[in-house]
Amino acid sequence: MKLPAVTNLFADAGGAGETFETLLGGGGFDLERIVSRGQASPRGHWYDQERPEWVALLQGDAELEFDGGEMLALTAGDFLLIPAGCRNRVASVSDDAVWLALHHDG
Amino acid sequence: MKLPAVTNLFADAGGAGETFETLLGGGGFDLERIVSRGQASPRGHWYDQERPEWVALLQGDAELEFDGGEMLALTAGDFLLIPAGCRNRVASVSDDAVWLALHHDG
Repeated sequence: MKLPAVTNLFADAGGAGETFETLLGGGGFDLERIVSRGQASPRGHWYDQERPEWVALLQGDAELEFDGGEMLALTAGDFLLIPAGCRNRVASVSDDAVWLALHHDG
Repeated sequence: MKLPAVTNLFADAGGAGETFETLLGGGGFDLERIVSRGQASPRGHWYDQERPEWVALLQGDAELEFDGGEMLALTAGDFLLIPAGCRNRVASVSDDAVWLALHHDG
């Protein structure tokens, strides 16, 4: 048999710029890998998504800001469920940060 | 606003026994966290699943065996897509292993 291909979630971290990559998608969900490399959301930019997002910080450190001023400090392994319509931004993030996000129909 | 609850994927690794926990499920997929703690699949036991499984080893090391004798060595961050009906087992795994598995309808 042909063996499944193996890829690594932590590959190419520590480079330049933020990258988004859809790993898997289709029936009601999209699984996305995000490498942040120190790129916070632009000031005044809010993510405001139509679908709930399960998101895990797999490597690095980050601070999420919510649209009321609340902050959440995240460390490697932390995950949370962001409801649809819950405005948030990445206030700060380390330059080796790797995220896994699962957007789904709820 | 009430902040989303934060949980850590690497919590409780290094204990005893293998644990399975559904983190999220519903419309066409189930997201599962598995802590292996050195527990290989019993000899002669094969996973033979009706749905494709995206699986990532987030921490630790492991060897997957396929039903033809092929072996895949995995290290932290490695992920692969196991097709439905592709018989496989965990031949060996470190005692700190944490997996994330996304079973989906394909």
